[in-house]
Amino acid sequence: MGKVAAIIGGGVIGGGWAARFALMGWKVQVFDPDPEAERKMSEVMANAERALPMLYEAPLPNRGDIQFCTTIQAAVSGASYIQESVPERLDLKKKVYADLQNHCAHDAVLASSTSGFKPSELQDGAARPEQIVVAHPFNPVYLLPLAELVPGAETSPQVIEKASKILKEIGMFPLHVRAEIDAHIADRFLEAVWREALWLVKDGIATTEEIDDAIRYGFGLRWAQMGLFETYRVAGGEAGMKHFMAQFGPALKWPWTKLMDVPEFNDDLVDLIAGQSESQSGHMSIRELERLRDDNLVAMMRALKGQNAAAGKLILDHDATLRAPLGEEVPLVTVRRLVPVDWTDVNGHMNEGRYGQIFSDASEELMCHVGADRDYIAAGNSYFTAETNIKYIMETHAAEDVFVETRVAQGEGKKLRLLHEMKRTRDRELLATCDQFLLHVSLETRRSCPPLPDVLKAVEALAVKHAVSEQGA
Amino acid sequence: MGKVAAIIGGGVIGGGWAARFALMGWKVQVFDPDPEAERKMSEVMANAERALPMLYEAPLPNRGDIQFCTTIQAAVSGASYIQESVPERLDLKKKVYADLQNHCAHDAVLASSTSGFKPSELQDGAARPEQIVVAHPFNPVYLLPLAELVPGAETSPQVIEKASKILKEIGMFPLHVRAEIDAHIADRFLEAVWREALWLVKDGIATTEEIDDAIRYGFGLRWAQMGLFETYRVAGGEAGMKHFMAQFGPALKWPWTKLMDVPEFNDDLVDLIAGQSESQSGHMSIRELERLRDDNLVAMMRALKGQNAAAGKLILDHDATLRAPLGEEVPLVTVRRLVPVDWTDVNGHMNEGRYGQIFSDASEELMCHVGADRDYIAAGNSYFTAETNIKYIMETHAAEDVFVETRVAQGEGKKLRLLHEMKRTRDRELLATCDQFLLHVSLETRRSCPPLPDVLKAVEALAVKHAVSEQGA
Repeated sequence: MGKVAAIIGGGVIGGGWAARFALMGWKVQVFDPDPEAERKMSEVMANAERALPMLYEAPLPNRGDIQFCTTIQAAVSGASYIQESVPERLDLKKKVYADLQNHCAHDAVLASSTSGFKPSELQDGAARPEQIVVAHPFNPVYLLPLAELVPGAETSPQVIEKASKILKEIGMFPLHVRAEIDAHIADRFLEAVWREALWLVKDGIATTEEIDDAIRYGFGLRWAQMGLFETYRVAGGEAGMKHFMAQFGPALKWPWTKLMDVPEFNDDLVDLIAGQSESQSGHMSIRELERLRDDNLVAMMRALKGQNAAAGKLILDHDATLRAPLGEEVPLVTVRRLVPVDWTDVNGHMNEGRYGQIFSDASEELMCHVGADRDYIAAGNSYFTAETNIKYIMETHAAEDVFVETRVAQGEGKKLRLLHEMKRTRDRELLATCDQFLLHVSLETRRSCPPLPDVLKAVEALAVKHAVSEQGA
Repeated sequence: MGKVAAIIGGGVIGGGWAARFALMGWKVQVFDPDPEAERKMSEVMANAERALPMLYEAPLPNRGDIQFCTTIQAAVSGASYIQESVPERLDLKKKVYADLQNHCAHDAVLASSTSGFKPSELQDGAARPEQIVVAHPFNPVYLLPLAELVPGAETSPQVIEKASKILKEIGMFPLHVRAEIDAHIADRFLEAVWREALWLVKDGIATTEEIDDAIRYGFGLRWAQMGLFETYRVAGGEAGMKHFMAQFGPALKWPWTKLMDVPEFNDDLVDLIAGQSESQSGHMSIRELERLRDDNLVAMMRALKGQNAAAGKLILDHDATLRAPLGEEVPLVTVRRLVPVDWTDVNGHMNEGRYGQIFSDASEELMCHVGADRDYIAAGNSYFTAETNIKYIMETHAAEDVFVETRVAQGEGKKLRLLHEMKRTRDRELLATCDQFLLHVSLETRRSCPPLPDVLKAVEALAVKHAVSEQGA
C-alpha cells in the first residue's frame, strides 16, 4: 500500500488535512457530498501551498494528487490513513464509520478530527473498534503541528503507533493523551477561556478587540514558546515551582473566574460578539485575515526555528528528514527553496541581505557535501566567509521557488572559492550571482588553518571536476 | 520634574519595571527593604539589558541610573511615575500608599502592579484616591508590552492620561480596562487555564510537559499573534463570527471544563506539579530558562515586527519614535544597533547574510536622509541595490553593539555608490566593509530612471561633501 490518505469530510479542517498530506507527498482521496467542497478545499489548498513550504529550508516532497471521489468506498481504496472530519453529530459519525469499515483496509488508521466526542463513543458498536482513534488537529491544520492522539479503551497499540508515525511524517506533533476526557486537553483550555471571554464581553468589561489585545500583547507570546507550567517555573525564579504555587495557591479560592456559570447563548449575545468582531476587522475579508494569520504564524515559527525552540524545533527536526544529500551534477544544485514571507523588505521584494543568506546556505550545503558538516564544526573546524561579491540581477518575491547552482572555482589548502548562481525555478531566469571566498578556520583559535585531510581531498576533487567541466562546456 | 520613576518593591516584577524605565532613559529610584533586593534586581537588569534593545532597530535612549534608596521618601523624590509592586497583602499595600502619599508629588502617577486587588480597594481610605490606578504588567515586564490600566471610581482622568502616555513612552501597551473586576482581564483567563491544568495533572490525564506541548504547538501560536476572537472569526470562514458561534454555542452546556470545582490545594498537589516540572526541565537553571524564554520572545516579536503585526506593530511604531535624523558628520553614522539573537548562525556568530542586511539598512537610512523615504517609495520611486562587495574582517556576536559609517562615493544621475564600514562600538574595531552600488528605479516600470530633483540634489551634495572630506583627510 502506497502513501494514500482518505479525507472524509472537507471544510476548513478536512481541507487542512488534505493540503498537509498532499504537500508532504501523499496521494489524497476526498469524499464530501457537499457540492461546494471542491471549491472550498481548493481555497484552503491555495493558502497551504503558499505557507507550509515556507516553514522549511529543504524542499518538500513532490506534491501528491488530490482526487475527489463520489463514494466513501472509492475514497478509502488503497488508503493506509483515513481522517474523518464530518460534522459533530454522533449519529452521523457512527453511520460514516460503519460505511468506512465496510470498505477500508483492516490495517488502515481510522482517525477522527472530533473535539466533542471521546474515542470510546466512536468505537461503541463499530465493526472493528481497535482501528479507531481520535487525531484532533488545530486550525490551520497545514501549519500548526499539534494533533491530540487519543486512543479509546479498544484502540490497538499498532494503530496508535502507526498513526503517530504517519502524523510525524507529515510534520505534526502527535500528543498521545493518556486517558479519554471530554474535549481532550487543549479544547478544555479553549472552552474555559471562551466562557470567560463571553462573560467579559456580555458584562461590558472588555470588547472582543480588547480581549484579543490582552492575549496577544501578553501571555499569548509566553504560551507560544513555553506553554503554561514552564512559564510559571521561570516566574517562580530561584525558589522554583513550589514557590510559585504557594504564591498563587490562595487565588484558587478567589472569585477570579465565573466559568461554570455559563452565559445564556442567545441572539443578543451573538449579535454583541459578532458586532464587535465586525468593527474590529470587518474591513478585511476572511481571505485577507487568513493570509495575515498564516504569514504571522510562518514568521513566528521560523523565528522559533532559528532558536531551535518549541514549534521551531519540531520543524527543524522534520526539515532534517526532508533533506537529500547533494547530487553529483555540475554545477551542484546546493539550494532548492521557496522565499518565505520574512525575507521581504520595504520595496516588497527579497531583501539584499537574504540573497547573502541564501548563498551562505548554499556554501553550508557544499560544506556538508565535502564532509565539513555539523559534527565537523562541533569538533572545532569550519569555513568562514572572508569576502562576497553579489550581483542583483532580478527581483525575487515571497513564495517564489528558487534554486542555487554552485561551482567550486578554487579549493586549495585553506582557501575555498565558490561561484553561485541563483535562479527562478519556474523559468530558470538568473536572479543573482555570488562570488564567495571562504577560509578554513580553527574554531578554537578563530584563525585560518588547513582543513582535515578528508575534507581537503573532497574540496580538491570538486575543484578539479568543476574546472574540467567548465573547459568542456 | 524630569523623567524619574520610583519603583516600590523589587523582585521579579519591580525589577522588570526598573529595567524597562532605566533602559528607556528614565532615572529610577528603588525602595525595597529586602537586603537581597539589589542583587536580585541586578540579575533582572542583566537579562533586560541583553534582550530589550534587541527588539529595536533604533538605538535606545541613554540608559538612566538605578539608585537604591533607604526610605520611601527618598525613592519618590522628584518622581513623576511611581510603580508599587509589594507583596499581595491589602494591609501592607495600604500602609505603603499612606507613606507614598505623605511624600510624593501630588501630580505623580501612583500605579500598582497588583493582580489581586481592584483599584477601588487600594483607594479606599487613601489621602488622594484620585492619584491611584492599577497598571498590571506581565512577566517579563521588560519584554511583554501589555499593562492593564485599571482606574478606580475615583481615579482622575489626568492620572489615567498621564499613566497611559508614560507607559507608551517606555514601549508598553496600556490596555484601558473599562470597569473594575477581580483579576482584571488577562488573569481571569490565566486563572481559568491554571485551574483546568491543575485538574488535568491531578487526574492523571496529562503531565505538565504534555500540557505545555498542547499549548505551544497549537493555540499558543494562534493567540500570540491574533488573540481569541480574531482567531475564531477566521475559523468561522466565509460565514463569519455568527457561524462560528452557532457551531460552538451548544458546547457551552457540555462538561468541557470543571473550573469552579477547584482542586484542593495541598502538599500532594504541589509535590505532583513540582515533581513533573522538575523532570521536564530540572536539568536547566532558572537563568538558563530565562535566557531561553527571552531569546524566544525576542525572536518571535521581531518576526511579528517584520510582518507589522500584533506586538511587532507596537515595537515598530515605538521604534519610529526613537529614531533620530542622521547628523551632518562625515562619514555619516547610518546605523547604531545591537546584534539580535535571530542574526546568528551555526558558527555562533552573525550570519554573513545579516551583514548584507545591516548594510542594506544603512543605505535605507541614507536614502531617508536624502529624501528617498517611505513616502517617496510609496509615490513610486526607490533605489535598488545592483551589486555589493562585502569583506568580513572580524566576527560579531549576539548582543554586541555595532555602528555603520557611510560615505557617498558616487552620486550622479541614477547611480549611487556607497562605502560602508561596520565597527564595534566598544573599541571601534573594524568588523566589515561594504562597497554598494545602487540604481534609482521607477517602481512602476521596475527600470532604472533618474531620481526626482530634490533627491538628486541631496545625493550630489553629499557626494561632493564626502569627496572633499576624503581629500582633506
